Amino acid sequence: MFRFSKMTDELRSSDIRNLMSLAINPDIISFSGGMPGNDLFPLKEVDAIYNNLSESKKQAAFQYGPTPGYPPLLESLKEFLRKKGLPVDENQLIITTGSLQAINILAKVFVDPGDEVITENPCFIGTISVLKSYGANINGLAIDNEGIGIDLLKGALNNPVKPKFLYLTPYFHNPAGIVYSESRKQAVIDILKGKEIPLIEDDAYGDLYFYNEDIPRVKPFKAINPQGVNVCYTGSFSKILGPGLRLGWMLVPEEVYVQAELCKQAFDACSPTFTQVIADEFIRNGAIYSYISRLRIEYKKQAMAMVKALKENLPDYVQWTEPRGGFYIWLKLPEGADSSEIFKESIKKGAIFVTGKTFDPAGKRNNFIRLSYSSTPIEKIQKGIPIVTDAIRKICG
Amino acid sequence: MFRFSKMTDELRSSDIRNLMSLAINPDIISFSGGMPGNDLFPLKEVDAIYNNLSESKKQAAFQYGPTPGYPPLLESLKEFLRKKGLPVDENQLIITTGSLQAINILAKVFVDPGDEVITENPCFIGTISVLKSYGANINGLAIDNEGIGIDLLKGALNNPVKPKFLYLTPYFHNPAGIVYSESRKQAVIDILKGKEIPLIEDDAYGDLYFYNEDIPRVKPFKAINPQGVNVCYTGSFSKILGPGLRLGWMLVPEEVYVQAELCKQAFDACSPTFTQVIADEFIRNGAIYSYISRLRIEYKKQAMAMVKALKENLPDYVQWTEPRGGFYIWLKLPEGADSSEIFKESIKKGAIFVTGKTFDPAGKRNNFIRLSYSSTPIEKIQKGIPIVTDAIRKICG
Repeated sequence: MFRFSKMTDELRSSDIRNLMSLAINPDIISFSGGMPGNDLFPLKEVDAIYNNLSESKKQAAFQYGPTPGYPPLLESLKEFLRKKGLPVDENQLIITTGSLQAINILAKVFVDPGDEVITENPCFIGTISVLKSYGANINGLAIDNEGIGIDLLKGALNNPVKPKFLYLTPYFHNPAGIVYSESRKQAVIDILKGKEIPLIEDDAYGDLYFYNEDIPRVKPFKAINPQGVNVCYTGSFSKILGPGLRLGWMLVPEEVYVQAELCKQAFDACSPTFTQVIADEFIRNGAIYSYISRLRIEYKKQAMAMVKALKENLPDYVQWTEPRGGFYIWLKLPEGADSSEIFKESIKKGAIFVTGKTFDPAGKRNNFIRLSYSSTPIEKIQKGIPIVTDAIRKICG
Repeated sequence: MFRFSKMTDELRSSDIRNLMSLAINPDIISFSGGMPGNDLFPLKEVDAIYNNLSESKKQAAFQYGPTPGYPPLLESLKEFLRKKGLPVDENQLIITTGSLQAINILAKVFVDPGDEVITENPCFIGTISVLKSYGANINGLAIDNEGIGIDLLKGALNNPVKPKFLYLTPYFHNPAGIVYSESRKQAVIDILKGKEIPLIEDDAYGDLYFYNEDIPRVKPFKAINPQGVNVCYTGSFSKILGPGLRLGWMLVPEEVYVQAELCKQAFDACSPTFTQVIADEFIRNGAIYSYISRLRIEYKKQAMAMVKALKENLPDYVQWTEPRGGFYIWLKLPEGADSSEIFKESIKKGAIFVTGKTFDPAGKRNNFIRLSYSSTPIEKIQKGIPIVTDAIRKICG
């Protein structure tokens, strides 16, 4: 009856989305959501900001803004990014409606149906959905504890078909939790140099490191600013202010900016000015820096609680590494294990997580579990992890 | 150097966007922006709402929400729409990031490159950009004072190629200002019946009628709920609360909803919860109704000031009709007149508007001018209109 576009064949609701409805049940202990904890939001700081806004700033907050962003926020965000060493003067910044929109815009700007794109495997589910919606062929390359497999990447770039871009989430990867080593970043740069294959660098979690010694590891590719490699850098306020403000950004070369800005004009004309005004003040009054410091401490506590519970309860045949930042722990089960079966067992007892195949671009590899500790209070972590590990033992033996 | 997608060939920055930068100069009198006046925003009402939010509502405001919308807003908005006679129970509602995103999603769901879509000519520039970004062939049909040309529509539907949908903005059209007559709406329904060509009905301005006698004319097609015609209805908070909140909606049949919701998952996951919480309270406490009543009075005053200035200053050969609501007056100049030349003359003297070809899907027909009175104080209307009419006389004689 309806004659839909071909794109609709590519879109399927993911496990993770369908599971979210279950997570709303307050009795279920959820390790599935990739969101900040409700108790951690900076309500007081934002109350103070809102109530100190001048009338003219409030009027600006209600009004349309320029497509690339509310000009004061572009300015203050540049200073925030400059402190990370990012080359803000030789690139262009666009505020986006979450960093997912930044990734969507970049996909629209680069990908025609049938084009190849290289990602990590596992890969952020949002990016998988975006790439499929443009008909991309996703070549997902396995990662280890230091980043994407270098030999795999070399091999993929030797194919006759040249991929449109390489998409990486190098810092506290979603779902794998890993952070790239400095040497792995250099190896990726050496491979990409002069290849005319842009790197899309998704840095949604980089601020949330637990150990100061990792500061060199979370230095973005974009900040290394490698000659001969075009880096399109994306970031987000979702983890360092609140996802409900729906604000992210991209920092990209001028040629990409021109196309991305035209694309955003047709997407939503501009991102919410109302929340851009708040984010601007949150940076300008310095609250963002103290808030991020607080988040590092709080998320580290939650992570360590989960690490302790896993050490006490996980069978030896499950492989994992302790998180050094971000939101996630990624469990590798024996080959052939089916995390969907474990999920069914675990939800019966009252705890949920996300199954591994959700993050496989091919939707198959399922001997993995993503555990998120970011929105789960410590006492629920202590209670919920044994439920998950019991389910693993029951299914895997 | 960059290998962009084919879509990028279709995107061009529009005159109106390029002109917006000029409009920021406070000395220029602008009739070009399609935005509410800054002085009209409900700052006090929203201050009261913000400061009465409970801690748990504030936490929800900072958090991700479900893709179709913040559940309390879906509920309150349904009541708002039910009062307009819309069939909210037999359709599905999605909150979108402005109604432009609703149109973009519907285009993505229906249009493959090369597909034909029927619009009015002139047509909302945002929709033209969206349709081009999906490679649609736009068949823009001329309108008169009562709506789209019925013989033209019949003719277009007799073509062997079946269009994917018909897009109309029947109430206080942007840019033409007209409102459909009841008989014209019925004629459109009779033509579409059983044709399996969905109607996308863009109702961004329908609440802003100046005369109560027009209430039957602004009753949406979707509220008429014609059997045998699938109507995808879009609306917006931009004109009845503030565009900076970036909130719109679509009310669509279940089959369209399923596809649209998957598409929105990949666009931005959810619209800003922060502003959805505010919009929800704005409906629930009834402020929206008194605010809309106030807007009708204020915009009518501004419209009447422009009507008076035009009557006093326009040469006889310019055709136009008095607005009965909305934001716009559309001037028809003699055939062959070039509004871009008039624009250059007018901006020299300090007043701007939008040229006609901006709203022509083919980008050619330029003997029209769009004047917006929505964001211009009355004294500036009185001062600026003679500048525009002088420029018309200078170029057209």
